[in-house]
Amino acid sequence: MSEKQEGITAKKNDDFSEWYTQVVVKGELADYGPVQGTIAYRPTAYAIWESIQKQFNDMIIGSGHRNVYFPLLIPESLLTREKEHIEGFAPEVFWVTHGGDNKLSERLAVRPTSETVIYSFYSKWVRSWRDLPLLLNQWCNVLRAEIKSTKPFIRGSEFLWQEGHTVHATVNEADEEVMRILEYYKILVEDYLAVPVLIGKKSEREKFAGAFYTTTLEAMMPDGKALQAGTSHNLGQNFSKPFGIQFLDQNNKSQYAWTTSWGVSTRLIGALVMIHGDDRGLVIPPKVAPIKAVIVPIYKGNEGEPVVKKANEIKSALGKHGIAALIDARDDRTPGWKFSEHEMKGIPVRIEIGPKDMKEKKVVIFRRDTAEKKSIEESSVAKATAELLDDIQKNLLVRAREALKKQTIEAKDYADFKKTLEERGGFLKCGWCGSDKCEGSIKEETGATIRVIPFEQDKKIPDCIYCGKQGKEIVYFARAY
Amino acid sequence: MSEKQEGITAKKNDDFSEWYTQVVVKGELADYGPVQGTIAYRPTAYAIWESIQKQFNDMIIGSGHRNVYFPLLIPESLLTREKEHIEGFAPEVFWVTHGGDNKLSERLAVRPTSETVIYSFYSKWVRSWRDLPLLLNQWCNVLRAEIKSTKPFIRGSEFLWQEGHTVHATVNEADEEVMRILEYYKILVEDYLAVPVLIGKKSEREKFAGAFYTTTLEAMMPDGKALQAGTSHNLGQNFSKPFGIQFLDQNNKSQYAWTTSWGVSTRLIGALVMIHGDDRGLVIPPKVAPIKAVIVPIYKGNEGEPVVKKANEIKSALGKHGIAALIDARDDRTPGWKFSEHEMKGIPVRIEIGPKDMKEKKVVIFRRDTAEKKSIEESSVAKATAELLDDIQKNLLVRAREALKKQTIEAKDYADFKKTLEERGGFLKCGWCGSDKCEGSIKEETGATIRVIPFEQDKKIPDCIYCGKQGKEIVYFARAY
Repeated sequence: MSEKQEGITAKKNDDFSEWYTQVVVKGELADYGPVQGTIAYRPTAYAIWESIQKQFNDMIIGSGHRNVYFPLLIPESLLTREKEHIEGFAPEVFWVTHGGDNKLSERLAVRPTSETVIYSFYSKWVRSWRDLPLLLNQWCNVLRAEIKSTKPFIRGSEFLWQEGHTVHATVNEADEEVMRILEYYKILVEDYLAVPVLIGKKSEREKFAGAFYTTTLEAMMPDGKALQAGTSHNLGQNFSKPFGIQFLDQNNKSQYAWTTSWGVSTRLIGALVMIHGDDRGLVIPPKVAPIKAVIVPIYKGNEGEPVVKKANEIKSALGKHGIAALIDARDDRTPGWKFSEHEMKGIPVRIEIGPKDMKEKKVVIFRRDTAEKKSIEESSVAKATAELLDDIQKNLLVRAREALKKQTIEAKDYADFKKTLEERGGFLKCGWCGSDKCEGSIKEETGATIRVIPFEQDKKIPDCIYCGKQGKEIVYFARAY
Repeated sequence: MSEKQEGITAKKNDDFSEWYTQVVVKGELADYGPVQGTIAYRPTAYAIWESIQKQFNDMIIGSGHRNVYFPLLIPESLLTREKEHIEGFAPEVFWVTHGGDNKLSERLAVRPTSETVIYSFYSKWVRSWRDLPLLLNQWCNVLRAEIKSTKPFIRGSEFLWQEGHTVHATVNEADEEVMRILEYYKILVEDYLAVPVLIGKKSEREKFAGAFYTTTLEAMMPDGKALQAGTSHNLGQNFSKPFGIQFLDQNNKSQYAWTTSWGVSTRLIGALVMIHGDDRGLVIPPKVAPIKAVIVPIYKGNEGEPVVKKANEIKSALGKHGIAALIDARDDRTPGWKFSEHEMKGIPVRIEIGPKDMKEKKVVIFRRDTAEKKSIEESSVAKATAELLDDIQKNLLVRAREALKKQTIEAKDYADFKKTLEERGGFLKCGWCGSDKCEGSIKEETGATIRVIPFEQDKKIPDCIYCGKQGKEIVYFARAY
């Protein structure tokens, strides 16, 4: 275990990419798999994912959605039925061609997303307006053959996500569903992961392959690159027509249904690492931290027993307040080594207890986000820890909001746009005439894309940052993961 | 929805296979997917699976295991490293050969089980005796190309399961882990699913491909065929050697580790359907039923409002006791139609309330397992429902134990063995000399295999049922799913 003692050697501000990799690997969130772009999700990362699952399940089950599971393998003839959809996904599909020694009669896609296979069921299940809305969600793995720019959690050949797939009688109901879910995502990402986001629509060029329109949550990473944190799509009747999802309305007339799909993935784990982590390592927001506090008994020689006993009492006091804590009583490590280890792994609060503290009926309490320490009455340890966890959660979001604000810049003109992008990245707020041509030229010349067209537009729209014609919308450009 | 009204048309005792398919499909547990042997797990089935996950997670997390997630795709060179393992799985592996248009340099297996890919990580993670035991589990999908005898939940090309993979310093610790998990499985399967099982070891011929030994839980289905409900394997050092899982012991000496693996799958859903279902449809054991009770308000014309209000009060009273209930107030269905529907879908308890009941401050309460109805005081409805759910849970297990007892038969001689197997199936208890040859001949001649060698052996072992030589062990033969 000696390699751990050195901790994170890269600095977040100096070499962000190397820093990220070290935090993920040394912080034991993930390790690289034998196939390019695959990782193992280690216990802490998976527990964060389980927290996310629990929070989001509470929201969607409470609003009438139900969890289900659909097949991984999709026959090629199904996947290719909606033309824009397959064009978007074709380059990254893993194809199964053999079962044992037998060549299959038709190639099977390993799902890159599940619209097509799910709609093959929905076309059987939806008959009448009474069957609508159909509100289903699945938690599963999806695969996309990524050969470049892979990065644990952020971009890989396999990731975990939820994908919701709903069917509605009218476009309005589909619109409402899209916005309801986007709002849930905003709560999940901001209130639980403490990752602030901009929300709005995607441009035609950037929307989901096959969608009527796409709404998105966009976060900004410390290196100036945007990260799409989740999307919620109104698919219109683009899929219900080729897949034959029809229902008899209340006048007994056959209608094509309106469908939506929406997803967030384990990418969110990458976002929280990038945003909250520091040079000591990971910082996990308390609400999704599997272990909220670590208790380190400090003693020399044979003083250990009463201190460890006290540590157990504290753990039990925390447990009564619903605070999951861990005691680190390993006898082959110094307190300093343990401190570094738990800081690297991002545990929000540390409680230190030694013979001197015990005599004074005190403990030392340390918060991971600011690295502040203070001595408190032992009798109030549970209450103090609960308050501290709340405060850390709030502080992480405040800090991240400040960073986002600093990284959101109004571009005066295209020269300024390019200069800012080159020097510091971030979201470049500007006017856009709405033409795909300007958007495409900017992408080609700078690598930046329209990340989001905010729902709330300013009253005055600046002229198009590229062509100078009258602006139609304010948009946020950025380079992105 | 008119096709539902007809309910289950096949009789469990007349055409078990057709009855099972109807219960699964009409009861809306599953529907057939576009690829042979794949299904969609519909909301009720998936909710049962989530109940199973919750119960088993509580057991394993409480005993120090942690959940993780490993990659789906396994390079061919890894999968083939342990020879017996690949021989066992080769015929059913789905192979990925292309990513987009690019032919891959090496074929990738879609995991049929994950020992090999997991051990590629473990060989990096395990260094010292201090890293042991390593106790990890994953909930995931696995794929096996099944082309014949596919049956929803029971045998398919894709299923959901958990697979635990642990590493230990000694064979004793691995033995203990294998038995600890087997005991958890027994509690899960008997106390939650109300499916009684025989437990013991597999013969060499029937053990997991690559295992040192396999322990198993075997259930008996009503048609006389056994169903393997779960397995827990000691893999010895069979995998740690080819995969290089070594640790430095307390004397700083390098040792190969001992590993175990264990799993239960969505097959358990199939088992509970087969065992508890009846000619009206599904019967879900209360402990795993997502909806414990359905409340049906009964009224004519304009009497509805107070009855529906009362139904809501009852739902709320049940909710306070933690009993999830559903009100069926649809106005386009008769009470009788609703009764059939909810019975078909296996909801454990039904509460009927009409104007006459309200006047008398009573409700009618119906139990799905015995189809008994009684009138009770409305004020005691939550308590009565809770007691009834308990009683149904117990009764289902008692009934299933009686059935298992009747289906476990001591075979006097080989002629009797064959006659019984042909006439009624079931577990055939008999002596076995321990030779693979006798076991193989019986399989060839009758289709029956040794399902389990019970841990608790009788004092007197009968002679081998096949060769008549001295019996070494008592074993249970059966034909199996």
